[in-house]
Formats: sequence, C-alpha cells, structure tokens
Amino acid sequence: MANLNENFLKLKKNYLFVEIGQRVKAYAAANPDKNIIRMGIGDVTLPLPAAVVAAFEKAVREQGVKETFRGYEDSGLGYDFLRDRVSDYYKAFGVSVDSSEVLISDGAKSDCGNFGDIFSPDNTVLVSDPVYPVYVDSNIMGGRTIITADSNRENGFRALPNNDIHADIIYLCSPNNPTGSVYTKDELKLWVDYANNRKSVIVFDAAYEAFISEPDLPRSIFQIDGARTCAVEICSLSKTAGFTGTRCGYTVIPKELNLYTSSNEAVNLGDTWRRRQGSKFNGVSYPVQRAAEAVFSDEGQAEVKANLDYYKTNAKIITDTLDELNVSYTGGKNSPYIWFTSKRFPDSWALFDKLLNDVSVVGTPGSGFGKNGEGWFRLTAFSTNEKTAEAMKRIRETIQL
Amino acid sequence: MANLNENFLKLKKNYLFVEIGQRVKAYAAANPDKNIIRMGIGDVTLPLPAAVVAAFEKAVREQGVKETFRGYEDSGLGYDFLRDRVSDYYKAFGVSVDSSEVLISDGAKSDCGNFGDIFSPDNTVLVSDPVYPVYVDSNIMGGRTIITADSNRENGFRALPNNDIHADIIYLCSPNNPTGSVYTKDELKLWVDYANNRKSVIVFDAAYEAFISEPDLPRSIFQIDGARTCAVEICSLSKTAGFTGTRCGYTVIPKELNLYTSSNEAVNLGDTWRRRQGSKFNGVSYPVQRAAEAVFSDEGQAEVKANLDYYKTNAKIITDTLDELNVSYTGGKNSPYIWFTSKRFPDSWALFDKLLNDVSVVGTPGSGFGKNGEGWFRLTAFSTNEKTAEAMKRIRETIQL
Repeated sequence: MANLNENFLKLKKNYLFVEIGQRVKAYAAANPDKNIIRMGIGDVTLPLPAAVVAAFEKAVREQGVKETFRGYEDSGLGYDFLRDRVSDYYKAFGVSVDSSEVLISDGAKSDCGNFGDIFSPDNTVLVSDPVYPVYVDSNIMGGRTIITADSNRENGFRALPNNDIHADIIYLCSPNNPTGSVYTKDELKLWVDYANNRKSVIVFDAAYEAFISEPDLPRSIFQIDGARTCAVEICSLSKTAGFTGTRCGYTVIPKELNLYTSSNEAVNLGDTWRRRQGSKFNGVSYPVQRAAEAVFSDEGQAEVKANLDYYKTNAKIITDTLDELNVSYTGGKNSPYIWFTSKRFPDSWALFDKLLNDVSVVGTPGSGFGKNGEGWFRLTAFSTNEKTAEAMKRIRETIQL
Repeated sequence: MANLNENFLKLKKNYLFVEIGQRVKAYAAANPDKNIIRMGIGDVTLPLPAAVVAAFEKAVREQGVKETFRGYEDSGLGYDFLRDRVSDYYKAFGVSVDSSEVLISDGAKSDCGNFGDIFSPDNTVLVSDPVYPVYVDSNIMGGRTIITADSNRENGFRALPNNDIHADIIYLCSPNNPTGSVYTKDELKLWVDYANNRKSVIVFDAAYEAFISEPDLPRSIFQIDGARTCAVEICSLSKTAGFTGTRCGYTVIPKELNLYTSSNEAVNLGDTWRRRQGSKFNGVSYPVQRAAEAVFSDEGQAEVKANLDYYKTNAKIITDTLDELNVSYTGGKNSPYIWFTSKRFPDSWALFDKLLNDVSVVGTPGSGFGKNGEGWFRLTAFSTNEKTAEAMKRIRETIQL
C-alpha cells in the first residue's frame, strides 16, 4: 500500500494566500464596480528590463538554430557566464564569492523548499515568529522539529539568538518578509557566532537585499566574519528585476561549509547539495539564464536601479501616510514591505476585512505569519505609484487606524 | 549541530555519466586529433522547432511590456493554455485526461526526483534492473527500501510483476531507458492489476512515448483499464521537441488516485502533491510555457514529427548495422535507445573502452544501469544522421562485436 508521508498531516490546511484570495474573490463578486487595489501578495508590477528582454530573445533564437542550440547543461548548476556575473555582483559590497560557490536556481522558493532534503530529520529548526511560511512547511514535510524565536516590537522584529536554546538549522530573512526589519552587522554577528559555536547552519534568505539603501546595513551574511563556515545565502531576481514569472535565482554555498554525520564526521555541504540536485534537478532554462546574465550588465543594473527607485517611491508614499496618521511600523526604508500596527484593530483579520470592505484595499494580515504577527498588517511596495497613492488616500480619508 | 541526512551516505559515489565524462575527457586530451562521436548521454541535436521559437520570443516580449507582463502564476501548477493542450494531446491516443489533472513541470527529472516527498519513508520501492538511476537515488535519499525486478534477455527486458513480492511504489519506464523495450497493453495490465490489488502506486515514466510507432503498443498507462486508481504518468518535451535545455514537462495525476495513512484512510494523491509544490516550487517560466504550448500546435506537431523521423532514421542506421553484424539488441524501433550485447565483450566497460579507444565512439556501458546491464551497451539515436552513419561505419570496419 502506498503510504502518505504523514508529516503532511501536520501542515495547516489553509494557506494564508489562499484564504486571502477567497475573501477578495467573494468581495469582488459582490462588488463588481469597486476598484480593488492589491497590496497583499508580493508580486511586482514592472516588466522585465529592456536589456533583459533583448538578451532573453537572443538566447531563444539561438535555441532555434542547430549550431547554437544548447541541450542539457553539463552540471545543471548554472552556466559559468551567469555564475561569474553573480560573483562579480558580490564584489560590489565587498564580498568574495567564487563562481563555483554560486548555484543557479529556478527561484529562491525552490532552493529554500528543497534544501531540507540534505539535513537529518532529527535536526531542530529555528525560525523567527512571524515567519515566511515556506521555511516552516518544508521542514514540517521533512519531519523536523520547529522552534521559534520571538520577533516583536520590543526587539524591532529582529530576534536575536538565545544561547540556552539549541537549534541545528536557523532560517534568517533580512530584509525581513513580512516585517521589513533589517539586521545590523553586529546583530548578524551574534547569529554567526551562535551557529559556529554549535556547528549549526544558517539559511540566510537575502531575497530583498537590493532594497537596502543604508550603506552600513549588511546586504549579505558573508559580510560578517565567520559566516563562511556556518551559512548559505539564497537570493532572487524576482523583486529586483521582475523575475517572478520568469523564474531565476541563485544560492551561495561556501566551500568550507560542512554538515556532520552522527559520528561527528564532517561532510561538505556544497557537495551534498550538488548530489541532491544531480538526482532531482536538471538546471534552469538556458534562455532564462541568459536573461538573468543581462540583469547584471551595466544597462541591466541601471534599469534595475530605476525599478527599485520606483518601488521605493511606493514605500515612501505608504510610510509618509503612516507617519501622518501616527501609526507604528517597521520596514519601508530598506525593504519593500511595510509592517504596521493599529491600536483600533488588535485582530489582523478584522483590519483585513475593514480595509477590503471600506476602501477596497488588499493587504496581508500579520497573524498569518505567526502569533507575533497578531495585530500587525503587511503592505507591499510593489504596486504602481498611482494605485499606491490612491490606496493611501482612501485609507487616510476613511479609516481611523 | 547540522546533521547530514545519512541516507546520502548510501548513494554510490560515482555517477555513471560523471565517470563516462572523465574517461572521454582523458581520451580527448590524449588524442586531440580524433573526431569523437557521442552517442552516450541522451541529449538531442536538433534545435527547437520554428513554431516553438516564435511563440517563445513573443512571450519574452510580453514580459517586457507592463500591460502584458506576467508575474507569479496563481497556482504554480501550469497555465490553463498549456494544460488544455496536453489534455487534447492525450485525446489523440484515446485517453481522457482532464486539464486539472495535468501539472506542468520544469522537466520530467524534477517531478520524478521530488515525487518521493509525499510517500512514507517506510514504503518499499520496486524498480526494474537495469534502471534509470534517478528512481533509485531519489528514493535512497528519502530512506526507502528499494527492491528490483529483473529485466533481462529472457523477458525481453520487460520485467513483469511477481505476486509473491510486495511493493508499495513501482517505477515503470516504457519505452524503456536504457533498454528501449516497450510494454504491451497486456503486460501493463498485469502491473495495473498488481498495483490495484495492493493499493500501490505506479510512477509511469512516459518520456519517450512519442517514439512508439506500432499502433498496438500503449503510449500512456491510462490506455489500460484501472490505471486511474493506481498510476501517475510523467512526461517530457525534451526528446520530442528539443526541450533538454529549455526545460518543460508535465505530470498527470488522476483525480481518483489515493495514498493511505497508516490507519488506512485514503488521502488524495494529487492534493498532496499540489501541497508539496505549493511550498517548494513556484511554477515554470511563463515564456517557456508558451513555447511548450506551441509544441502542441498543428505547425509544432508537424515539426516534432519531422524531428522524430530524423532520430528514427538514426535508430534504423544503428539497428541495420547490428542486424548485419548479427548482434542481439532491443529497442530502436519504438524507442530512441538501442541496447545491444556482444559475446566478445562480456564486460560493458571493456566494450566502452574499446569503442572509445579504437573508433572514438562514446556509448553507455549497460552495467552502469544495474547488474542485469552487464554485458550490454546503450547507444542513442539523438546524434546527427551523418555522425551516426560514420560511427556505425567505423564499428563495422574496425570492431568485431
């Protein structure tokens, strides 16, 4: 008899965004004349940069010609032309990452979700609460015990390590989804020391690093001494270059990073992950990799910067309104997420319904990310300037937060 | 301490194609003047069909325009425009598959490798020997017990079920990689009955179905009565439409297919897989899905047929030579693989070295696919007509098989 992996029974039934989708759908059906503004799910609105489209098209045409056609990629881990560009990109913030340490993925979510495959089911996983659900659900499926570190108003939604608590695998996300908080170098150093002391591994989700504008804040965990022996970093082109529907990201695994057998023998983590990918993945589409390469060209980077500025304008529209309304929030400055709380709405879903029903604005209830999210609410800066301004106008005029 | 999933220690160290690659590399370095003909790895040589390139390019351009840009795909399971085409494609061989039962993947290998996630680690997996290594390695990583059914000359490399042996998950590949053998409907019916009697699940790898030219041979397991309650089917566009480097495939999961909890409760398999994908995958690149859609257009199908005919010509060049040399083989007629044996070379790697060193032809030693592959050798029909003819000429003139 084919048996279920019963860890699946431990998963929550309703995925946050499914529930939001259902409520919005019902509202839209009942109110067909309303102009709904969606600032819930973290999808972008700007198209691929022109330089990216040109490179993407060129590679597609190569695939139609026998002499330039590319089949299976030898390694399935990414072409050198792209890995080299990522390595160069890291140099810009003072981090030395060898091209061979860069692995190209079809997006941060795949690597993030599949990464558990190489860890023992007996390991304990630490996540912050509130948390991006993928870290939790993928580890529940893998049968690992999950413990949480409280992120809350007191610590600025930047949970720090507690040496009395033991964790083997630690997920950190900075700039944080959902709270928009960003760790300082000193704070990350505490996590790196914690992990090195325990031979634990930090999975550092840097999907939003490009939104960091303050030069002192770290854009990579590898800016921290000691990170190369305890951390992997997962990155995305989704939000910077509009790859949400085109699918490409990259993961950095330092050569010196190890896992340990039960008899305490070191096993190279990168080799183990490559062995996993060798059996369960066959590389990212060649034209998509050429498109990603163009993101890192001078022209591509100029367009990415313009896109980031556009989204940062949205973030400022939102935070200016919250400042005006005297509402507490984190994020918005070095992050595309704005995480706010309202004394009048201690229940996140009540505020969700209020915003949807009274001003046709869709956000994300913070309680969907964990118990510490209750009473908080997430807005994203990925809409258009016009819609963001309109949403804030409606809120300012109609809702007492 | 971050611990290794120790199932990884049970994997064989040297992956077959890595070893082949190393031997070929050494030979090429020592013999820079030799014209090496590669008929080992199953990569294709013909480019993407023109209709596919046109659709692919158009979709890339859409991604560069705000009004037509597509970000995250809602479901991550494939756009309806492509799922509908796959559903239509099945109708051509008399199979009714609803669009909602078709899930779009970034290639057969990913779904094949990741599929184990939803099964209990306590399940027993049955594979044929010889076998495509992905079935074995991905299940070793998942901690499942693997048993083998002998495929050999006596049963035409089409292992049949033995009711005395118990298996919960069964991997079948027809047309077979590596042996080129194809199950008849009656034979598949035996497997379907075996699986239904045990509530087991068949993972049917139909990556090479388009190579079947005899109308009585089944191109889908869903042509067999009872398959919808016991089978999933994994398909690929890699070999038919040249998607080895473009990456797209599809998996069919019938609505009525279940897994069972340890207390014998039925859980829908498709829902479980969708839950898995929802946390660990974010869909296939939109332009790639548009390219795949064009494979199923009238123009695309005409070009695919021309490509198949081209590769079938190669298969005939190979089998004509083997017939002439009085060498035993399977495959070649309804399959792109030709699997032959030579009395003079009972050691597959010895024949590999002989072909490489004496005539600069690269094939795949059968022993790399399992114990029953010893003494056998795989050639692929995916090279060019010219190179295939040249390789066969060299073998005919130089090597006594």
